[in-house]
Order: sequence, then C-alpha cells, then structure tokens
Amino acid sequence: MPDSAPSTFIIPDRLTIPTIAKRRAASGPLNAGVAAAADVEAFKGRTQHLHKPPAKRWCHRLTDETKARKGSSLKEAARFLETEGLISLGGGLPSSEYCPVEEMTFTVPKVFSTGVVSDETDVITAGKRDLARGVSMFDVETAFQYGQGHGAAQLLRWMVEHTELVHDPPYRDWSCTMTVGSTSAFDMAMRMFTKPGGWILSEEYTFSAMTETAAPMGVRVAAVAMDENGMLPDALDRLLFTWDETVRGGPKPFIVFTVPTGQNPTGWTQPLQRRRGIYAVAQKHDLYILEDEPYYFLQMQPYAGPEAPAVPPPTSHEEFLKSLVPSYLSLDTDGRVMRMDSFSKVIAPGSRVGWITASEEICQRYRTHADLSTQGPSGVSQLMLFKLLEEQWGHCGYLDWLIHIRMEYTTRRNVILDACERYLPKDVVSWNPPAAGMFLWLSVDYKKHPDYRRKSLEDMEDEIFHKIIQYKTLLMKGSWFCPEEGAKPDALFLRATYAAASRDKIQEGIKRLGEAVKDSFGITAEVNGSS
Amino acid sequence: MPDSAPSTFIIPDRLTIPTIAKRRAASGPLNAGVAAAADVEAFKGRTQHLHKPPAKRWCHRLTDETKARKGSSLKEAARFLETEGLISLGGGLPSSEYCPVEEMTFTVPKVFSTGVVSDETDVITAGKRDLARGVSMFDVETAFQYGQGHGAAQLLRWMVEHTELVHDPPYRDWSCTMTVGSTSAFDMAMRMFTKPGGWILSEEYTFSAMTETAAPMGVRVAAVAMDENGMLPDALDRLLFTWDETVRGGPKPFIVFTVPTGQNPTGWTQPLQRRRGIYAVAQKHDLYILEDEPYYFLQMQPYAGPEAPAVPPPTSHEEFLKSLVPSYLSLDTDGRVMRMDSFSKVIAPGSRVGWITASEEICQRYRTHADLSTQGPSGVSQLMLFKLLEEQWGHCGYLDWLIHIRMEYTTRRNVILDACERYLPKDVVSWNPPAAGMFLWLSVDYKKHPDYRRKSLEDMEDEIFHKIIQYKTLLMKGSWFCPEEGAKPDALFLRATYAAASRDKIQEGIKRLGEAVKDSFGITAEVNGSS
Repeated sequence: MPDSAPSTFIIPDRLTIPTIAKRRAASGPLNAGVAAAADVEAFKGRTQHLHKPPAKRWCHRLTDETKARKGSSLKEAARFLETEGLISLGGGLPSSEYCPVEEMTFTVPKVFSTGVVSDETDVITAGKRDLARGVSMFDVETAFQYGQGHGAAQLLRWMVEHTELVHDPPYRDWSCTMTVGSTSAFDMAMRMFTKPGGWILSEEYTFSAMTETAAPMGVRVAAVAMDENGMLPDALDRLLFTWDETVRGGPKPFIVFTVPTGQNPTGWTQPLQRRRGIYAVAQKHDLYILEDEPYYFLQMQPYAGPEAPAVPPPTSHEEFLKSLVPSYLSLDTDGRVMRMDSFSKVIAPGSRVGWITASEEICQRYRTHADLSTQGPSGVSQLMLFKLLEEQWGHCGYLDWLIHIRMEYTTRRNVILDACERYLPKDVVSWNPPAAGMFLWLSVDYKKHPDYRRKSLEDMEDEIFHKIIQYKTLLMKGSWFCPEEGAKPDALFLRATYAAASRDKIQEGIKRLGEAVKDSFGITAEVNGSS
Repeated sequence: MPDSAPSTFIIPDRLTIPTIAKRRAASGPLNAGVAAAADVEAFKGRTQHLHKPPAKRWCHRLTDETKARKGSSLKEAARFLETEGLISLGGGLPSSEYCPVEEMTFTVPKVFSTGVVSDETDVITAGKRDLARGVSMFDVETAFQYGQGHGAAQLLRWMVEHTELVHDPPYRDWSCTMTVGSTSAFDMAMRMFTKPGGWILSEEYTFSAMTETAAPMGVRVAAVAMDENGMLPDALDRLLFTWDETVRGGPKPFIVFTVPTGQNPTGWTQPLQRRRGIYAVAQKHDLYILEDEPYYFLQMQPYAGPEAPAVPPPTSHEEFLKSLVPSYLSLDTDGRVMRMDSFSKVIAPGSRVGWITASEEICQRYRTHADLSTQGPSGVSQLMLFKLLEEQWGHCGYLDWLIHIRMEYTTRRNVILDACERYLPKDVVSWNPPAAGMFLWLSVDYKKHPDYRRKSLEDMEDEIFHKIIQYKTLLMKGSWFCPEEGAKPDALFLRATYAAASRDKIQEGIKRLGEAVKDSFGITAEVNGSS
C-alpha cells in the first residue's frame, strides 16, 4: 500500500500512518479468502490498547430479539475447513467459474499531498484471481462470492486503522463492523435497543428519516432543545430528570441519537465543550449514544466574513486531523457510543458501504444480525473501495482527498453565505455560518409577517414555502424536521443546501429566495435591510 | 439493447423477447435520472394484463410495523422538482464532482446462442456522465448517487420484463422491487407478516438461515412432511386442520416458506402437479407463500443413468423456458405469493442484488421499508448488472448464459452421481438424482449401523460426521436443517454439494465418503454392495 513512504505526520503515543505499516508487518500477512472471518483485534495496535478500560456491558438494555440471536450452525462446520487436504462438499458456494466478470477497473483522479486533486487519472484494476496469483490481497473471485456480515477483512482492516488514526477510542474492546449504510445501521440499532411504546432522544430538529424509521417500530422521539452549538446538556438533563412515565406513556429513554457535526437540518456543529457536556449527562443517566456522522469530513475552514480573504488549507495531515472537532467516539471512555461512519458524502452514496464503531459486545450483536439480513455490503462496492482506499490512495491519499473535499465545501459554503449577505432581508431572515456539513438553516422572523396573528405558524410556513416555489426555487420546510409528534414548532425555519447546485445556481437561488421572502413579507426594495 | 434483432422465440399471447422492444418504443424513452421513482406498470405489457383479476388484499395479515410505515415527508418536496427552471436548494445530495470514480469497466465473456460461452471477452464501460452525453440510460453519476429503495428504474425494468417473460403472473397488479438479496428479503417479509409467538411453515428440512432469522423475532417454524417431490399437500392440510393453538402456544400459521426448485438441503424439486396441490391447500387455508428460488435456473437436463449418453442442450430459448418447472408465481391467480429472485447462483452472490415479485400492496410495503433501511442495493452492483444484462447481453444473452450454467451443473451433477454409484455402499446410502440446484441429499440407513439401539440417532450422526472428516472430507449434517425446535429427526441424512469443488475433487470426496461410511458401518470391501 502507498503509505510505506516516510511522512511527517506523527502524533506521539497513538497510531500514525507510518506506524501502520510496522504493525501490519508485525501481525503477518492478511490471508483472507472466501468469506473469511475478520480478527479485528489483530488490526488494532494491540499493546497500545491494553492500558485502556474495558467497555461497559449493555446486556440490560438489549432487546429479546438481539439477545436471542445465535451463531449459525452451518458455520460450526467451517472450522473443519482448516484441516489439511480436506475436500469440502459442505458449503453451498457457487464456483467462481460461473461468475461472468473476469476483470473490473475504476478510473480515479490522482491526488497529491495536502488536498490537491489532479486532472490526471489512474486506472485501478481488479482481476478475477489476483489473490491466487499473489497480485493483490483481494480480487473479483473473493469479493463477488458470499461473504461475512461484517464485510471483507481486507477492507475492514483499513476501516479499523482509519478509525484508530482519527478517533483512537479510549477504551480497550472497541471494534468495527461494516454496514450497508447508516440508514440501515440505525434501523438495526433500533431493533437492538428499543421496544414498541418506547422513546428515544434527539435534537429538536433532526433528520426526518430517523423519526420515520423509529415510528413504525412504535418508538417515539423526544426532542431535546438545541442552540447553534447543538443539543443542550441542561435541556437533556432536565428532560430526563423530569420524565414522567405516565404522561409520556413509556419508560425514561436511554438512547440518544445525535448528528454532532454539520447536523441535518441545522448545519450546526457541537464544539468539544458541548460534546463533553452531553457525554457527562449520558454518564449521569446511563444513556447510550448513537453518533451519526456522515458530515464529519465536511468540516470546513473558518468563515471570516463576506469580503475576507480565503483561509489557506491545512498544510499537513496532522494539522488537518487536529482541525477536526473530536468525535463522541474519541471521548468515549465507557463504551457507550455507537458511531456510524459513511462514505456517502465523501466517495459515493451509491456504494452502500459504511461502518459502525462500538464495543465488541454491540458489534457482535450487529454482525450476527447482518449475517441473517443484509449479509454485509455489496462485494462489488467493497472491492472498489478496497482498490481505491487501500491500494491506490492508502491512508495518506484518503486524507488528501478529504482535504480537497474540505476546501471545496468551504468555497460552496462561502458562496451561499455571500449570496445571503447580499440578497436576503436581514431584518426577517437570520442564520449562523455553518462550520460543517451541507446545510444552511435560515430562521425566518414570522412575527414580522403581515399575516402574523391572523394565520397559524404552520400556514405561514406553507405560504412562504409555496411563495419560494413561485419564484422557482426549492427549500425544505423546517417543520418537516420536527421529530416529536404533536409538538408544534414555535419558530419558522427553512433549510437550504449548498452541496448540490452549481455555484451560479446557488447565488441565483438565494437571490430568488430573497425576492420571495420580500414579496411574502411585503418588503419593498427600498426598505430592504432598514427594518 | 441487443434484443432488437429478430428471434425465433415467440410464445403466443404473452410477452416475448421481440415484443419487448416494441413495448419499450410504445412507452417512450426511459428518462430516469438521480433517485428517479420507477413506474413498474409502464414496464409491463399493460393492455395484456387488464383481463387478469386483481390480487387479493393482505391488510388483515400485516403487522402494525408495516401498516404504520408512511412515505417520507421530504419526498413530498420532490414533486416540485419537475417545475421548469426550478433551482433546488432542497435535497441534500452531494454533488457528483466529489465522487472520485470517472469510469468503471467490466470484462465479461461473449455468449452465443443456445448457451455457448466463448473464451473471448468484451469490455463493458460505464462513464461518469453517459446519461447527459446520451451514450447510455445509466451512468456512474446516477448509479453512485442516492437512489430509491426499489432500486434504479433502469435495472428494475429489465427485471420486470424478465419476470413477465419467464413467469407471466396471472393477476393484474403484480410488481417487482429490488432486494439486497433474499436473506434480507426474508428478514423484511418476517417483519411485514409475523409477530412474536407466531409460527410459520416450511419443509421438514430447510435452509437453516431461515429458521435462524425467524427465531430471534419469536417466530417458530412448523415442519411439513416432504418426499422427493417436495412438501406434501396432504401433510400441509392436515397440519393446519389439526392445529391446536393451546398445544402450539400460537395461532394457526398463514405463512409458508418454500424452496420449490432444487431445495436446500434436499436438492428436491416440486413438479408442477405438486405445486398445484400445495397452492390449492394455500387457497383453502388462506396461506401466503414465500417462494424462495435461488436455484430456479439451476434446473438441469434429465439424468439418464451412469453410462447414458449426455442429453443435448435446449435448442432454443423457447425450448429452454418450456423445460423449466412453472413457478408458484406463474400459478398465482390470487396474488398470494412473494417470489424471491436472486443472482447469487448465476452471476455473483457478492452483488447483493435480487428482487421480489408480489402484488403492488406487498411491494409497496417492502419499498417503504427499504427506503428507511437498506435504501436499495449498491449502485455499483446495479450499474454492473445493468451494463451486463441490459446493454451487453439483453434478455436473449442472459438466457444463453443460463443455458450455459444449466449444462455446467448437469455435468457436475452427473459427476457426483456417477461417483456415488461407484463408491457408496448402496445398502446403506441412498439418494434421488437431483433435477435442480446444488445439493445431493444422502439418506443413511442408520438401522444398519453397529451401534443402532445402543446410541441415539444424534450420536450416530455425529459419529459419522466426524468419521467423514477423519477421511478428510466435509459434508453437512442433516439435522442442522431441521427447522422445528425440539422435533427430533427420525432419519439420518447428509448434504453434499457439487457446486463448489472441482470435478476431480468431487469424485475423490465421494470416494472418501464411501470409505468413511464403510468404516463407520463396519463394511469390508468384499461385502460392499452385496448387503
């Protein structure tokens, strides 16, 4: 892999890119054939973790469904496959002769240090029998065959190393296992932890698919108040402290779902101090945290104002990693966090490959379910990611790519903020510059609307939403992100994204938004901004 | 697509390969961009289905979970995307600029008519923006983006056409939706239909992962007696007729899980008459059938005995399709079947792409769950399958490939049967020649074992299993496939597969098996076969 070259990136006393190669050499070659079980411990810096405390056990919180999951009896037979000279007429795996794909290639851009992406491309090739030929650790024959619920060891090792490099979880028995995406991981976590009639906790505005996943399982979402630094520890503590089972019709919740970085829909990011505060409340009430982090690597350069010069990119991998807000996982001394990582925002949503990091107890429950449902992610996707992340880029190249993405999102964020400064009536619309993610959360002062007191907030929101569409621009209604059924919002928000449209269209869209809001609020061009 | 050329394959009054092109032309071009919703009705021969009855409704059988599933509120906004000139700052899709894959290729063998596969290969290429460039209906940009739970319309259309071509479901409102494999489809079907404390029905020996999926949900499996033609209608009827809720501790079951073709583990195939019998019992007791058909296209040429000459392959696509046992789906006048189709045995298990066919009511429930769990199969896999099945092979080429697979499995099946004839002591081991699938189910007459009456059947099975391993061969224990907890088998079976090992190894493995059985039963070479 391309990381064996010397590098200036060193964090003392924890995993660094140069030491990965050493560790790998020490643990011997990775021989992972068809449906090989992965030994995650062997992928970690074992001696470095021994001083850490073990994770708390969660058996008392697990559902009957997850506790009843046993290993497969057929897998009992797999241990005999090691027998020298054994002929297996056992496992029902189709011969790879009948897989019609002989070779697969991907064309990807070259990346250079500190985030510079080239117009030149490389072609990555995976052959059918590269493993047997000694050309690669992974190939079409192995990836296209049945696999394990945890995914292929070859790619899982990369994920474990990346996780240790970025988060270095502070307890001993952390582990990783692949997902078919965080939407599925959340669905599976709900079945592991929640029962019909139960409640979970989340930010007061949150990713609506989460609420929609929980609801059919009979699980309701209690909204925790937030500010521009995310969920409020005091509000979380108070909500739990004053929880009334009779009024709520369900026991005090112990699952908190949070998107700490570039939250959807608000775009807000919890600073370290806020995360420490929430974690302390989680310890006090013995909560389990589901940390959903699709936007973690969409953390941007600081916003310095509309006319300010661009902030230069990080000059080293070390500087880049240090610039990132520490994750809950990195603060998790107790093993009370399941972190969900995703490639959707930084490689491709269509890969349907992600991973969770949690204590081995939780990962084991997850794997056992995956073995009997998703069977792990697509081998085609896994082979593509392995060839790209392990063999082509390595950890260094991936960080370079992430720095590139960071700078691109910084530009996009600056474009939308500059357009907002220029086109939106600031006496009616206000916002906080996002530090991460894809979203700008616009607060609309509905009390200045001519229909205020005559119309409900809901009707005003609907009127403004449709007015914006009249001006041929689409934003999302804030109320769509309210997770708590029946809890009426007392504010009017709109969500805009700067991830998708071209820069010109972002500017034009915000201009139209400004015109629509002025029209709706009866603001003429003259009085714009003068209030 | 390569099917527009004339073909001799015509079945009057139903879909044929040449008429697919006409229908497509009549319904206009398929414009399916990012996360496009698929209109399955438009992919079917609409006028040809109008005379068929509508499917029965299953609302009374559905769980609270599935009934509570609603569409996504964010998708409400998607309908405005059609507005001419609209700028969307709505949906949080990452720009494809930040997907590092510019091009993807696959090298596949050429196939010729009637199942001849060439050593020559073709390279299939998918570019990032082939759709915008007018080069293809599907591309990297679209496939690698977020999609729909039902999968991409481009590939789903091919599946709908293939389903109609092969099965022509006899009710009006059938539909298809993609799965991430049949293991996941079964898991999702369980959540749609079953409750803790419930029972489902299956063959008395069955795929153990099914039992292991049901058990953690609190669902038990009642075993229906079978013979070499599969599940017995009378046994099914009697089991339901005599169902005692008190004894069983659960209501009379209404879900029957069956693998009708090349069943796992028995390798047995239900002939048409047997399927009609089971379907009639399903109508009588209002059952819903989960038809799991991974081995459907592993139906083989008839077995004519050890020394008989090879039976030549089908000479046309029509002859090939007519040679296949009709599916439950093709008999399903009521819409009481969910058929699970899979590419695992004929393309690659690692694709994690399959599909179900069922009434629109059921497909809609399935899609709504998929939207909030798997989010549909990997786009990388889907793009690969689309390029191969739609653009490279077309329906004709795929049938040619399937005929190739059929002939290969015929050879493998003949190799194992010839070896059994030659090496197994027939007074102790007996079998039925499989007509489909990957498995040979060997019945061992334990009453001839020297320890009979001294040891339990379980202990004898274990002894024989380990004896075979001593002879360096692995087969599966029959008891591992018993689905009903506590129900002790009264027969001793071993499962052998001829799918995986090379032909030499199959012969050698069966030879060793013969020696192991003779050793275990104390049969000397002289008395072999003489009983």
